[in-house]
Amino acid sequence: MVAEEIPDLELLRKGGKLQLSRALSLLEQSPAKMLNLLNDCYHAPRAQVVGVTGPPGVGKSTLLAELIKSYRAEGRTVGVIAVDPSSKKSGGALLGDRVRFSTDPEDQGVFVRSMAARERLGGLADLTIAAMVLMRAVFDIVLIETVGVGQSETDVSGVTDTVVFCVQPGSGDSLQFMKAGIAEIPHIALVTKADMGKAAERTKADLRGALSLSSEESSDWAVKVLALSSSDKTGLEGFMTAIDEHYTWLQSEGMLSVQRHQQAKQWLREAVRDLFGRAGLSFLQNTELSLDKAGEISPFELLSQVQQELVISRR
Amino acid sequence: MVAEEIPDLELLRKGGKLQLSRALSLLEQSPAKMLNLLNDCYHAPRAQVVGVTGPPGVGKSTLLAELIKSYRAEGRTVGVIAVDPSSKKSGGALLGDRVRFSTDPEDQGVFVRSMAARERLGGLADLTIAAMVLMRAVFDIVLIETVGVGQSETDVSGVTDTVVFCVQPGSGDSLQFMKAGIAEIPHIALVTKADMGKAAERTKADLRGALSLSSEESSDWAVKVLALSSSDKTGLEGFMTAIDEHYTWLQSEGMLSVQRHQQAKQWLREAVRDLFGRAGLSFLQNTELSLDKAGEISPFELLSQVQQELVISRR
Repeated sequence: MVAEEIPDLELLRKGGKLQLSRALSLLEQSPAKMLNLLNDCYHAPRAQVVGVTGPPGVGKSTLLAELIKSYRAEGRTVGVIAVDPSSKKSGGALLGDRVRFSTDPEDQGVFVRSMAARERLGGLADLTIAAMVLMRAVFDIVLIETVGVGQSETDVSGVTDTVVFCVQPGSGDSLQFMKAGIAEIPHIALVTKADMGKAAERTKADLRGALSLSSEESSDWAVKVLALSSSDKTGLEGFMTAIDEHYTWLQSEGMLSVQRHQQAKQWLREAVRDLFGRAGLSFLQNTELSLDKAGEISPFELLSQVQQELVISRR
Repeated sequence: MVAEEIPDLELLRKGGKLQLSRALSLLEQSPAKMLNLLNDCYHAPRAQVVGVTGPPGVGKSTLLAELIKSYRAEGRTVGVIAVDPSSKKSGGALLGDRVRFSTDPEDQGVFVRSMAARERLGGLADLTIAAMVLMRAVFDIVLIETVGVGQSETDVSGVTDTVVFCVQPGSGDSLQFMKAGIAEIPHIALVTKADMGKAAERTKADLRGALSLSSEESSDWAVKVLALSSSDKTGLEGFMTAIDEHYTWLQSEGMLSVQRHQQAKQWLREAVRDLFGRAGLSFLQNTELSLDKAGEISPFELLSQVQQELVISRR
């Protein structure tokens, strides 16, 4: 094998962290070259993708470290994408590598990657979905961590099967949760630092109140409101069970592929909009290059077609 | 005068709240028709535009109510735009009219308008800058309130002369401020609820620490870190003085027009990107339709030209 060769799906799955790491670097350098691998990975998903979001300081890193340890103890492999809220002005990542937990470098079953959120205010990097698709084809679980301040939670729901929203005790009443636009999204709401006793119970109650207000959503999944402290292992077990249950529910209801197809469509729309704006989206509506095929067909494939077909000129 | 007529700048200035209200409604219905008025207002600014941002619950509404009262007592006229973080899923405003303070309906010198943040995650509505330009031509002070969670502060800096970031005591250490991407932007950092004594002092110190870390910015304005409680009138006076001082500084350094021109350019780039995507922006770089003229020329005028000139087609 030549070192510069792009790995295929088989090599990606067998090649361990080295191959995945190379694939992700290639993806950042020249995404166009990765089209075939992305298409193959898109059609061969393996993992449940779990988004872990919540405001800064809520304890997401600690939670992720615990989760990874427990999944590995069960023999499940884990890929992690930590999305870095980059500074808009400087263009760079504000905190550098913000992964604040370490994993065993010898363990081929866990892989962690930081990605910058770039210009998109939503909090998810343009390449996040592509990286997710690669990892989803390789691992048993993919965790995506975002600094969920404000409405970036909405975005993580576009690339994940299961959204976990973390709150710490005493961080606001129901109205505040609603204002932050949070209540509509999570499948699991998790109160961290639950050793804070009464405040944790109060926050759980507030969350339940806020979540029940937004239950017009046409979903039969009843949002789980849980609590967890880093010293409380039963909290962790219950949390992991809830994650599994949501995945089982998605599959049994036939919702998993429906949801993923919707996400693919949404991503494609955003990508086309990014490239050709609203004018591009309207133009496509009147052609047979329909974005609606996304889902069944890889959205990366469709984007590549759009890129080759559309052109901007002067009237 | 026919009721459907679009007011001109003179009528807008003389016509009180009724005319302004009509102009803003027309702006929402058919922005294209408002081009002449927008151009005229753009070239006849009167107000200092002050952005008031900070996380939900920090006390922005109370602060605004106090500010308005004091400005009115000084005889200064005030326009307020309260940007509503709309719910992405439902498309509507989550809390309806979120202005939680009342003003004297008989007073023609104060005007408050809520605007939805629509799809833009940044927190500022597409129409906010247009509404701001209308109000800037009419009032002595324009206040723009945003629920500044996460990086939406970055956005408010694109439409205001002076950015005030509000924090409440005990809301995090320096690192948390940095993580939220806040430290780079404000001209004034204001600790609200300063009756909380020691916690307020601690938060002021944290803010000073966080702000000094980001002082590579090429600006000679030393960020003011102030504290204020709703019961403490000297806090309010000092805050208003700081707002005035920043405006005087902007004018004396010739920075006011420089900053406004940059904002106009940036807005035009965003607007073109929204309409024609990155492909549209690259295309314009190779034509004489340069976006660099924005500032001197009204960005609304330039956008209208771009809209008339560019077209998307199939290769």
